[in-house]
Amino acid sequence: MSPDEFRRAGYAVIDWIADYWATVEQRPVTPTDPPGTVAAALPGAPPTVGGEPVEAVLADLDSIVVPGLTHWQHPGFFGYFPANTSGPSVLGDLVSSGLGVQGMLWATSPACTELETVLMDWLAQLLDLPHRFRSTGNGGGVIQDSASSATLVATLAALHRASQGRWRATGIDRRYRAYTSAHGHSSIEKAARIAGLGADGVRSIEVDPDSQALRPAALRAAIEADLAAGDVPAIVVATIGTTSTTAVDPVPEIGAICAEYGIWLHVDAAYAGSAAVCPELRWSHAGLEYADSYCFDPHKWLLTGFDCDAFWVADRAELVEALTVLPEFLRNAATESGAVIDYRDWQVPLGRRFRALKLWFVLRWYGAEGLRTHIRSGVALAARFADRVRADDRFEVVAAHPFALVCFRLRADDDTNAEMLARVNHTRRVHLTHTRVAGRYTLRLAVGAPQSTEAHVDEAWKLLAAAADDLRTP
Amino acid sequence: MSPDEFRRAGYAVIDWIADYWATVEQRPVTPTDPPGTVAAALPGAPPTVGGEPVEAVLADLDSIVVPGLTHWQHPGFFGYFPANTSGPSVLGDLVSSGLGVQGMLWATSPACTELETVLMDWLAQLLDLPHRFRSTGNGGGVIQDSASSATLVATLAALHRASQGRWRATGIDRRYRAYTSAHGHSSIEKAARIAGLGADGVRSIEVDPDSQALRPAALRAAIEADLAAGDVPAIVVATIGTTSTTAVDPVPEIGAICAEYGIWLHVDAAYAGSAAVCPELRWSHAGLEYADSYCFDPHKWLLTGFDCDAFWVADRAELVEALTVLPEFLRNAATESGAVIDYRDWQVPLGRRFRALKLWFVLRWYGAEGLRTHIRSGVALAARFADRVRADDRFEVVAAHPFALVCFRLRADDDTNAEMLARVNHTRRVHLTHTRVAGRYTLRLAVGAPQSTEAHVDEAWKLLAAAADDLRTP
Ligand SMILES: Cc1ncc(COP(=O)(O)O)c(C=O)c1O
Ligand SMILES: Cc1ncc(COP(=O)(O)O)c(C=O)c1O
Repeated sequence: MSPDEFRRAGYAVIDWIADYWATVEQRPVTPTDPPGTVAAALPGAPPTVGGEPVEAVLADLDSIVVPGLTHWQHPGFFGYFPANTSGPSVLGDLVSSGLGVQGMLWATSPACTELETVLMDWLAQLLDLPHRFRSTGNGGGVIQDSASSATLVATLAALHRASQGRWRATGIDRRYRAYTSAHGHSSIEKAARIAGLGADGVRSIEVDPDSQALRPAALRAAIEADLAAGDVPAIVVATIGTTSTTAVDPVPEIGAICAEYGIWLHVDAAYAGSAAVCPELRWSHAGLEYADSYCFDPHKWLLTGFDCDAFWVADRAELVEALTVLPEFLRNAATESGAVIDYRDWQVPLGRRFRALKLWFVLRWYGAEGLRTHIRSGVALAARFADRVRADDRFEVVAAHPFALVCFRLRADDDTNAEMLARVNHTRRVHLTHTRVAGRYTLRLAVGAPQSTEAHVDEAWKLLAAAADDLRTP
Repeated sequence: MSPDEFRRAGYAVIDWIADYWATVEQRPVTPTDPPGTVAAALPGAPPTVGGEPVEAVLADLDSIVVPGLTHWQHPGFFGYFPANTSGPSVLGDLVSSGLGVQGMLWATSPACTELETVLMDWLAQLLDLPHRFRSTGNGGGVIQDSASSATLVATLAALHRASQGRWRATGIDRRYRAYTSAHGHSSIEKAARIAGLGADGVRSIEVDPDSQALRPAALRAAIEADLAAGDVPAIVVATIGTTSTTAVDPVPEIGAICAEYGIWLHVDAAYAGSAAVCPELRWSHAGLEYADSYCFDPHKWLLTGFDCDAFWVADRAELVEALTVLPEFLRNAATESGAVIDYRDWQVPLGRRFRALKLWFVLRWYGAEGLRTHIRSGVALAARFADRVRADDRFEVVAAHPFALVCFRLRADDDTNAEMLARVNHTRRVHLTHTRVAGRYTLRLAVGAPQSTEAHVDEAWKLLAAAADDLRTP
């Protein structure tokens, strides 16, 4: 494709996206077709001869792919946590695709590394993270693809430390243990499994029934029991904003315990980290000065498209020591000088794309104030929705909603709640998902799609109230 | 950013990329500035107020970032392995960014999963991979971010099998062993380390001095020795196209050994896999019917931008069993029905972007024939360069060049060769990297940037010959 063909086709794709965003609200938020529908509509083999104009592919996109999508950017999408994106993010990532540079080493494209280091320092300032995470000291940040990978990388560095450096050579030669609350994200167990601790290596610590947050006393007891059994506590993962209910673990207390026992503390703020751009929400990040590592996902709630997880460590040397492998074909003078960062040693994959560009575009378009406005709007919409729920005696709000997720249920049995969720989602005007809180089926409404407004949240409430009416009148 | 603002800014970015591609050849292929130059040119803090037009960011891109890049798409870029991209790949990925859907589960955007499954079947046909890898049987493909991650995932599935399923719960409770040739990629050791085997868990098998390929007899001996010591052979990683010299391990013999001992065989064709789109290069994939898993990187040599690794398994149930974690908030009817693929269980991260789109755009723009033309052009350019080297008595070609990498050296000591490489790269007209073959410093010229032509390869040769002249005449 020549530069001029690219220009023409590129305009068409830009138009297609602008139109998609302008009309996404009119689409059903979720698809209706059964499994296999999209696959069946596609040819069974790749084309032999190419040259199809991009317009032909866009037409198939419209007729085959789009009807089979759940529209995460739809203003009625309230499922899971948001995966919001924005124009500047898309354009920054487009520049990255166009440059096609590969930043595995500083030497393989210096600006790719340096912009990332600077951007991570900017983000650290924006969230007011402890100074120890800045690259100007011993710490530093890196963009990971996901919070899952960040937790994995933290687990590996923790094993390196807990083994006194043996782990690199000998692997898992003791029973190392990881700790997280019963509401810790599944990626914590997955990281432990990948790292060779097994599911048995993860201690699920009980939560306080009111706050749904980890109970420090239970953590201490689990650590003591493991130590008594000769096991090696390696890592504690505290969560700021759990997936179920956005509970905030008591990081100051947890951090003090980790410091006492010399255990690596990783703080997973995948969703709620974005909230820390607002000073009035920074209480949620108390105790972070105890953390050895911290991550949050700009790809969830900071208008930056997937994939973009921001991960920091307090001691970058420890991380690099755990992960570095230096074959001959990657040796170079800059690496040998020790004056540069080679991000390949901060992550699982070797290759890396220039992801800092999308963050750069986002920060310059929105500025700190623009991002705060975005977060505050989500928090306000969630509060508005929670007020509606609270005002209706048939419903209850089942957990605090400090951020933009509301957990609620009908005062009825689990099946009725599941049926209500199914009915509301069946309208395809909104999409909500569920969890269990204290064992009971609970609906989740997570605000965050960039186009969601009061009208959309109100519509969700109207649909829920109507479903409740129907379910109450058999 | 409104859809209309996006449209305007989007055109500007598309123009910027088209111009970049049209002029990349005129730029120095590598930057000259010392570490810290880019960082020093950026503000120390993020902007408070946003609203900067995209043009302002593009201007800074031009003045600060681009001068600090190594241009992987430059026609004089011959380093490492290529990371080539193309117009259709960039546009397919742009659509993915614009849609902003998250395909962790089939249910979270069915078309995202189904297009990927179909595209992986298309690719399997294009490379003529064994039927066992197709999703129509027990196998199936998935897009990973990188070959490193593919090898990690294969290692995990292998551990699950080698432990008879205990590994999920108990982790690494034996001395499990991984085997690869002395030229196996560093990602194999890294995967083993991540999985908790430690560097000691990796057996580096000697290579045949002529072919640089793994010696099957040495593999068998290593397995026997480990078994005798009570260790558990878990995985063999064979390489089709090693990073140093593109040596092809004898997969038929290796596969027979793996079958005999019941060891998982993963085949890493990160670079050379793309060659299999050409029937005349498929000899390199002999023996693949023995493989439990296989991967290659369209992001290296198939005109698809980073990140895109294509990974297949022969038994998808085994992989899913090893990696699945199912928390309440991800439960859904489609998953429970067993009728769908949830790709989150095929990879390390939870979230995933819609990467199949870029492959779709590439396959439809180029067609099978267009991709063959691209590969053949690289192979021919490499052959042309090798002829030049062979015709000059001062030089030697030190390894076979079945694909598009030529390994060569001056008949002189290592320091002289290193100096020659430094001088040639110092022109910033071309960029080559190095390796060691049989302990000796060796230059690598890897063809693959989409704009490289005979003129660029000839220029590389001229610069090398001139440097040799200078070095010979002190
Ligand atoms: C608290 C928490 N941690 C981790 C994750 C995993 O995120 P990712 O998809 O970035 O791995 C999530 C996703 O919802 C989450 O809520
Ligand atoms: C043979 C081989 N395997 C694996 C890799 C790692 O590739 P990736 O960056 O996709 O992890 C490479 C990279 O050059 C390679 O040559």
